[in-house]
Amino acid sequence: MKLATFEIVGTRKIGAVTGDGDKLVDFTAASGGDPRFASMLALIEAGDGALETARLFLAEAERSGDHLIPLADVTLLAPIPVPPQFRDFSVFPAHIVQAPVGMKKLVAALEGKPIPDVEPGDVPAVYRNQPIYYITNRFSVVGPETTVRWPRYSSYMDHEIELAMVLSKGGKDIPVERAGEHIFGYTIFNDFSARDAQIVEMGGMLGPAKGKSFDAGNALGPFLVTKDEIPDVKTLKASVRINGESVMSDDCSAMLHSFEEMIAFVSRDETLHAGEVFGSGTVNNGCGLEHFTFLSDGDVVELEFDRIGVLRNTVVRQDG
Amino acid sequence: MKLATFEIVGTRKIGAVTGDGDKLVDFTAASGGDPRFASMLALIEAGDGALETARLFLAEAERSGDHLIPLADVTLLAPIPVPPQFRDFSVFPAHIVQAPVGMKKLVAALEGKPIPDVEPGDVPAVYRNQPIYYITNRFSVVGPETTVRWPRYSSYMDHEIELAMVLSKGGKDIPVERAGEHIFGYTIFNDFSARDAQIVEMGGMLGPAKGKSFDAGNALGPFLVTKDEIPDVKTLKASVRINGESVMSDDCSAMLHSFEEMIAFVSRDETLHAGEVFGSGTVNNGCGLEHFTFLSDGDVVELEFDRIGVLRNTVVRQDG
Repeated sequence: MKLATFEIVGTRKIGAVTGDGDKLVDFTAASGGDPRFASMLALIEAGDGALETARLFLAEAERSGDHLIPLADVTLLAPIPVPPQFRDFSVFPAHIVQAPVGMKKLVAALEGKPIPDVEPGDVPAVYRNQPIYYITNRFSVVGPETTVRWPRYSSYMDHEIELAMVLSKGGKDIPVERAGEHIFGYTIFNDFSARDAQIVEMGGMLGPAKGKSFDAGNALGPFLVTKDEIPDVKTLKASVRINGESVMSDDCSAMLHSFEEMIAFVSRDETLHAGEVFGSGTVNNGCGLEHFTFLSDGDVVELEFDRIGVLRNTVVRQDG
Repeated sequence: MKLATFEIVGTRKIGAVTGDGDKLVDFTAASGGDPRFASMLALIEAGDGALETARLFLAEAERSGDHLIPLADVTLLAPIPVPPQFRDFSVFPAHIVQAPVGMKKLVAALEGKPIPDVEPGDVPAVYRNQPIYYITNRFSVVGPETTVRWPRYSSYMDHEIELAMVLSKGGKDIPVERAGEHIFGYTIFNDFSARDAQIVEMGGMLGPAKGKSFDAGNALGPFLVTKDEIPDVKTLKASVRINGESVMSDDCSAMLHSFEEMIAFVSRDETLHAGEVFGSGTVNNGCGLEHFTFLSDGDVVELEFDRIGVLRNTVVRQDG
């Protein structure tokens, strides 16, 4: 199923996209107000039984025509508007070696020097040995079509195309061979980045902060696709368009660590919770920094993964 | 007021310590079940009026003797058991320059080499120019007296004494001269750290992860002291005892950035929320890494700040 959190006439609901792709089944209505269908997090926390019931709602609505809403009539929100926790990993090797090249060029640009030619290095061993991640701001999540207001402290705004995985249930010390049971599904993540802030603060060695953490900086959507529809994430095709022009097309085959390996790694002596989000890190070549290009005021950024959809956001500079 | 979250006969409540220091006023009972007193977060979110009512409960209970519970009869929990968000800063200069010295020695130890003499460097300019921070795991918060189970992947466990500030209300683009209005109060934070994991993962440049993030790794308590009782945090005295032996005594005068400056910095184009926690970073000389000593199985760690209390936890190794 392609699940959605959406708003219609001021009410927040959840539902699923119909087979023809242009309508949503309103689970909130179909369930008669059952609290298990009150939000995406409630549905996830309710477990497999609730998900099976959701599938019945979808089948019944497609048969009867009841509880259907045209997609065009709703505002899609992030599938999980406020995740309980949000970790962002970095497992794509070309991004791992190309991002530092872009950062070195950016340092030169910020110092008013000519942009140097820099060759990418090798993937640092630690990135191969274990999944590298940090915790990002769960409150800056927004959905598709949301206008992202460029933070005023930045002159170098960037997008990043990532695949995001949502946990189906909590757990601790989860063995990798059982970690798949903890995956609920996948959505698209645009990890908007204020590169000039990021490069400065990362000199403090505690990771990115204001470079990644500002209102609307974490766009998720448009749909949360249950894992049965994506048996192998490594085959997913990813592409980026800026103002309709293709700037990147790749797939997820290069991942150094699978989501199952991330779950096993993080859950060592640490309890995970249903609904937590793991970002994959930028797909190879999937941000402007790797091409040393940045966003401009009014740019429309479209991130696409096949089987999931298109996450579109517009970036605007603020006055003052 | 010294506020507490506590448990008695399986029920979670909030209250305040009486003037004699050995009893708690049960706000949950005194308020007749008013939802504003159902949890510390509810009290904070309810704003100044609720806090004034809490002061009346305390005064009335001390007069009448009603709704008092001996402190000895309760289990104190973290004042905010699950903060909405938890940032950890690093603003103490001796810690900033001494921690990397300890890390270099630890690298030698992990490689089986002799421990070198290393001189601390200067405080990197970025630490003076802006508050450096990362987001840590809000779910690994525990309270005083909780036994901290040493993560099995680590052989070098450490404590860190930090002052923690709790936000009274949300906001965005908060000017530094008004940031004090957003401070609710202060508590003590023991940022338990798995140093061998931390040093490896920080090579990935995204900051600490499993080195700081494991169950029970973030101890908070024993009380949340309202800001009126601590007009100037820089005068607070901090001390650490391990198994009753004093290992550190200092004050907070060296902070490179005040909590007000942290609030102003983070809230630039970013919305903060009531109940979020900011850790100060380790007070100068306030962790084992700076002395190149680490914790042992069964160690009792006591962190004390005058006007707040003593946060005591025992660290135990796990089998298997």
